[in-house]
Amino acid sequence: MKNTFGSAVCLTLFGESHGPAVGAVLDGLPAGLPVDPEQIARCMDKRRARGDGLSTARTETDAVRIVSGVYNGHTTGSAITLLIENQNARPEDYARTAQLLRPGHADFTAWAKYHGWQDARGGGHFSGRITAGLTAAGAICLSALEAKGISIATHLYRCAGVPDQPFAAADLPLLARQMKTVQTCTGFPVLDPDATPQMQAAIRRAGAAQDSTGGILETAVTGLPAGVGEPFFDSVESVLAHMAFSIPAVKGIEFGAGFGFADLTGSQASDPLYQADGRVRTAANHNGGVNGGITNGMPLVFRTAVKPTPSISLPQQTLSWPDGTDATLQIQGRHDPCIAPRAAIVQTCGAAVALCDLLATWFGPGWLGPDGLTPTNM
Amino acid sequence: MKNTFGSAVCLTLFGESHGPAVGAVLDGLPAGLPVDPEQIARCMDKRRARGDGLSTARTETDAVRIVSGVYNGHTTGSAITLLIENQNARPEDYARTAQLLRPGHADFTAWAKYHGWQDARGGGHFSGRITAGLTAAGAICLSALEAKGISIATHLYRCAGVPDQPFAAADLPLLARQMKTVQTCTGFPVLDPDATPQMQAAIRRAGAAQDSTGGILETAVTGLPAGVGEPFFDSVESVLAHMAFSIPAVKGIEFGAGFGFADLTGSQASDPLYQADGRVRTAANHNGGVNGGITNGMPLVFRTAVKPTPSISLPQQTLSWPDGTDATLQIQGRHDPCIAPRAAIVQTCGAAVALCDLLATWFGPGWLGPDGLTPTNM
Amino acid sequence: MKNTFGSAVCLTLFGESHGPAVGAVLDGLPAGLPVDPEQIARCMDKRRARGDGLSTARTETDAVRIVSGVYNGHTTGSAITLLIENQNARPEDYARTAQLLRPGHADFTAWAKYHGWQDARGGGHFSGRITAGLTAAGAICLSALEAKGISIATHLYRCAGVPDQPFAAADLPLLARQMKTVQTCTGFPVLDPDATPQMQAAIRRAGAAQDSTGGILETAVTGLPAGVGEPFFDSVESVLAHMAFSIPAVKGIEFGAGFGFADLTGSQASDPLYQADGRVRTAANHNGGVNGGITNGMPLVFRTAVKPTPSISLPQQTLSWPDGTDATLQIQGRHDPCIAPRAAIVQTCGAAVALCDLLATWFGPGWLGPDGLTPTNM
Amino acid sequence: MKNTFGSAVCLTLFGESHGPAVGAVLDGLPAGLPVDPEQIARCMDKRRARGDGLSTARTETDAVRIVSGVYNGHTTGSAITLLIENQNARPEDYARTAQLLRPGHADFTAWAKYHGWQDARGGGHFSGRITAGLTAAGAICLSALEAKGISIATHLYRCAGVPDQPFAAADLPLLARQMKTVQTCTGFPVLDPDATPQMQAAIRRAGAAQDSTGGILETAVTGLPAGVGEPFFDSVESVLAHMAFSIPAVKGIEFGAGFGFADLTGSQASDPLYQADGRVRTAANHNGGVNGGITNGMPLVFRTAVKPTPSISLPQQTLSWPDGTDATLQIQGRHDPCIAPRAAIVQTCGAAVALCDLLATWFGPGWLGPDGLTPTNM
Repeated sequence: MKNTFGSAVCLTLFGESHGPAVGAVLDGLPAGLPVDPEQIARCMDKRRARGDGLSTARTETDAVRIVSGVYNGHTTGSAITLLIENQNARPEDYARTAQLLRPGHADFTAWAKYHGWQDARGGGHFSGRITAGLTAAGAICLSALEAKGISIATHLYRCAGVPDQPFAAADLPLLARQMKTVQTCTGFPVLDPDATPQMQAAIRRAGAAQDSTGGILETAVTGLPAGVGEPFFDSVESVLAHMAFSIPAVKGIEFGAGFGFADLTGSQASDPLYQADGRVRTAANHNGGVNGGITNGMPLVFRTAVKPTPSISLPQQTLSWPDGTDATLQIQGRHDPCIAPRAAIVQTCGAAVALCDLLATWFGPGWLGPDGLTPTNM
Repeated sequence: MKNTFGSAVCLTLFGESHGPAVGAVLDGLPAGLPVDPEQIARCMDKRRARGDGLSTARTETDAVRIVSGVYNGHTTGSAITLLIENQNARPEDYARTAQLLRPGHADFTAWAKYHGWQDARGGGHFSGRITAGLTAAGAICLSALEAKGISIATHLYRCAGVPDQPFAAADLPLLARQMKTVQTCTGFPVLDPDATPQMQAAIRRAGAAQDSTGGILETAVTGLPAGVGEPFFDSVESVLAHMAFSIPAVKGIEFGAGFGFADLTGSQASDPLYQADGRVRTAANHNGGVNGGITNGMPLVFRTAVKPTPSISLPQQTLSWPDGTDATLQIQGRHDPCIAPRAAIVQTCGAAVALCDLLATWFGPGWLGPDGLTPTNM
Repeated sequence: MKNTFGSAVCLTLFGESHGPAVGAVLDGLPAGLPVDPEQIARCMDKRRARGDGLSTARTETDAVRIVSGVYNGHTTGSAITLLIENQNARPEDYARTAQLLRPGHADFTAWAKYHGWQDARGGGHFSGRITAGLTAAGAICLSALEAKGISIATHLYRCAGVPDQPFAAADLPLLARQMKTVQTCTGFPVLDPDATPQMQAAIRRAGAAQDSTGGILETAVTGLPAGVGEPFFDSVESVLAHMAFSIPAVKGIEFGAGFGFADLTGSQASDPLYQADGRVRTAANHNGGVNGGITNGMPLVFRTAVKPTPSISLPQQTLSWPDGTDATLQIQGRHDPCIAPRAAIVQTCGAAVALCDLLATWFGPGWLGPDGLTPTNM
Repeated sequence: MKNTFGSAVCLTLFGESHGPAVGAVLDGLPAGLPVDPEQIARCMDKRRARGDGLSTARTETDAVRIVSGVYNGHTTGSAITLLIENQNARPEDYARTAQLLRPGHADFTAWAKYHGWQDARGGGHFSGRITAGLTAAGAICLSALEAKGISIATHLYRCAGVPDQPFAAADLPLLARQMKTVQTCTGFPVLDPDATPQMQAAIRRAGAAQDSTGGILETAVTGLPAGVGEPFFDSVESVLAHMAFSIPAVKGIEFGAGFGFADLTGSQASDPLYQADGRVRTAANHNGGVNGGITNGMPLVFRTAVKPTPSISLPQQTLSWPDGTDATLQIQGRHDPCIAPRAAIVQTCGAAVALCDLLATWFGPGWLGPDGLTPTNM
């Protein structure tokens, strides 16, 4: 399947960092969903670098051209193709050090896989720029979910060593307010207003030291119906993890209490059941909204670990390739000292695609649609 | 895809805990691989409960019947079906509390998905017993990988609050010795001999307190060729995570430094490249053997979080279902106070299936075979 | 995907002709569908050989053991495993000529693919016996479709040179009567009562001459909602053809007028539209119920070409293998002089699986279920 | 999967007839394959309408823009995106009769599926124009296959009632000459030079009568290794048929003797085996190069039925929609009186994609590559 994700709703990504364009084909959404270019642009904007010392100096307008699948402002039911032309390509940045394998990057693995035929400029198909297509496609899925009362938000749970408040996974009214805060913020997506200046200071310090720093993203999803996902293989966790690890720099994912479960007892980790407003709820939410691979109707909560970008200007020991001689690399180019802030919207959009796929697989694609497309014998 | 995993090598799991049998269909392995019932039995034995206070009192001989795909001790190239009859089913244990939703289990989500038609006895298709089929199938894949010089081992990185030594991810000779220790141990799979009695004491304490406890499993894979995996969607991490989250109780996965990346700088997390014995190596292995979704030839290392089994005898608040009245549950039945020790071999076997799939997808299934099946124009 | 078919409803086949058992795993049907062992047995019985000179002397009782996925007479929503033990295996029939490649069979291609590791006894995994699992699984799908008002019937459109009446593809009341005739017949599935004795006489003549003969099967499906299928790749025709060509001996498929279209003009081939009883109908049905890959609500009609079984007792020129010397083969064993009559129910059952998959993919699996499984926020 | 075909080599099609562009994403080809824009253009040119009375007056230059996956004239190993802008869109042709369902077209089925949200202009995503993307992608696959000695050709086996000579399926030297003839012809792809004027006259007669006509395409593939394909579900026939039925207007497919098998005896249909030049051959080729779903090394031969285009100017009875009133339709627009000649290259290109997928699935994608990409532990 390679560059295609999903079963009922399929996403194919394409493009190289310094090639003509990047983009996506999103297939399987029902007909009749409104597609709002402004809403796509807002998601793209959150992903966009600003050249402000917190993200790479390479800035792109990232205008999304809709090439197919949308007509009169609505999905047609056919594959939606989204094209984002590359404009600010400056491959000469890379030419100077093109022979040197960047540690922590895919330079060597791309060689091992493609034998030198890969477009290595700017990371080529391994670049974070490929997530532009994922973001554009996810923006459409996000709208579809919102129309069904399903909301997604991702915040910087931790960044450059600075913690944010956590999502209140079992307190629905508070969580709703927290998610609103994240979704409407224009700067860093955090819950604690004091966190932003501290995180930014820490990132700037790392950047000034020609270094970089990592973080943890936390995503919450509310409004999901119970009963979605499969007991084996296509569990909600499997499908969301499959998507999350496609985002460059993500190296871990945990649901609910996650790795914290290791030191809890069964009684401490219990999620007692009760009913409220005619719905089944759990008093705690250690399981992050998923039991046995299937949604239980409580908020879905997961966190991902984002590694510090390996593109740093400090000298790193490496190899010149393919000649294989020892070398020292000092990366110039334009890079993010911390990718986590920009990755937040990518994670939200990736989750939106994965959840649309899970929902459409279980209820049929029409469930996502405007009129609940149903069998017809017209 | 539901109960089927994989593309080139496909695994389908079936069965219910108290139904006639559980099992698996493993399809896509090349013809001519030796299948050793003793080796399968050894893996099954490691997964088996022993009724020793450390695992459930339900013990099954777990004899694996090979129904198809093996002839004269070798794979035929057709689908391999493995059948494990259920013998020690004691569904009356569950009948007493059958109406009560077990918190942390899939009882409610199964209702939400199957509307009461599920076979709820003993967790039905959500039972850890389904991993018997995964283990049997994985045992065959494990042999196939070993024949190609690829080795997998999983140890109890942490269990019931007691740490083991970690795998030495960048020290190949030491790691080889560690993996040998784990693979040949007959008791708890740990590296530190002192860890076993401490872990067992802690588990017994939890069991005596009618409670349970969690843990962390660490898996290492050596001998993988560089260049396997895909930059997007079918990254090595995506595929292994997809598999890992199919194992009941797994709630998190991290590769290499994983969540530890959050507080590292780029320079601290660097994996400098060098050559030794004509191969590219990294001096550290923060990335766990994967860059850009693709193997780099260094050991693949990942950890999973295993939650404490929610089946505890302490009283838990819950609902009677489908009537929805409040109730208090005290689980009797036979349960593991800690599932992590038995889950280690399941994780190894699951990884074996996933890696066979990745390798067969990239090099063709014949690569795994005895004679490197190649095109023929006989 | 190999031995697995389908997306929302998946069927995996396994087994070898002279191995322990053959069978199937059917995954993705909703919970709560009644499973009637008698109805499965009736389908198995139609597929069964009778040793009456019209089919092979190898007769099997073909008792279907339900190993998983059914509880209290209904589907649980988990994978359904069906096991049919092989009882009447007489591999010594094959031993005598085991070295000789049978022309028209898969003996040589199995060698080319499996390099001699295949279980060649009785054709192994290439045997028509593998369709026993397909039939058993299809029987369950057939019941599910019937409960939704969708009916399938297959008759011998042509057999051993003798034609039957064709299905009346655009005359709904007549077609309903024709389908009823086929579904309730206990002998040859034909519309014209005079056809049976003529076909049987022709088949017996071929058998007496140590030869065999072919035929054409015609399948009709009524009650399908309009709007199912995809414009590209997963057209109804693509999916049904994918299934049909899995049935050994099928070498062609055509929908509606099929190859007859070649000599028609557009005006002759027109299917004029009108309304009756509030539904859109076509006055003719040259398109066989499918336009642009999507059902139009008219009867779905297709025909398949079934080749004469290549297992004949007349001498055939061939090679001894793997030594490669010239040889003459006179097949003994027990074989069908015409496979078409037994293949009719297999085609019906295969179509049932494929249509369940198409319907479940588009409307969600719950659409096939007893209570139209719907999203729940219990 | 909808608009995506394949497993190891995946093709996704997108676009609408009168939208901004049509195109394709081709994923899974190995790195290092030469991509020649001229060769793509030659294939596009064969598919192109000429406005000469034999094909539609809508002519497009069909310039193919390579957006990703090709660098320095070679594949990079990443997804290849091909974009063909729509230039000669004249939707006003359709506006006049936009309310009237065209019999034999997907107008009604698109409504049933998409509830009116589809882009109906010019057939939208159901238009034959979507095959432009298939052709461009197939052209690249065709080159890859040719580099491995695998050749594909499609001729007009029958068109407008006029027969061509058939391919000599078992006579390799003659077949090679025939295929060369077809591949190098610039006009109608036929073997018999007298067939062209007769076919063209018959097509022009149909066009002059405001009618249209159908045909049969025959495709031969030589150079395939034996042993490719699967015994069930992913048989060569299943996979090629799945692809073929994606081409609009194809309503039947047969392999080798196909429907002719119905009236043959087993002895007449026998393909006796012998060896020549160290290879296994069959004296006849009734099975069209496939036994048990697997290639046998002989030429692969299949035929498809192409229906007369339903877009005719003769009056047809139909419905106005969605109001449902009776109406008479006289199609104006620009249409092909016979689609078969242009469909020949589409069928060749579609087969090229499907065969690349089958080969890459079995031997690994690297098998198609320039240096037989192999495992590396660099």
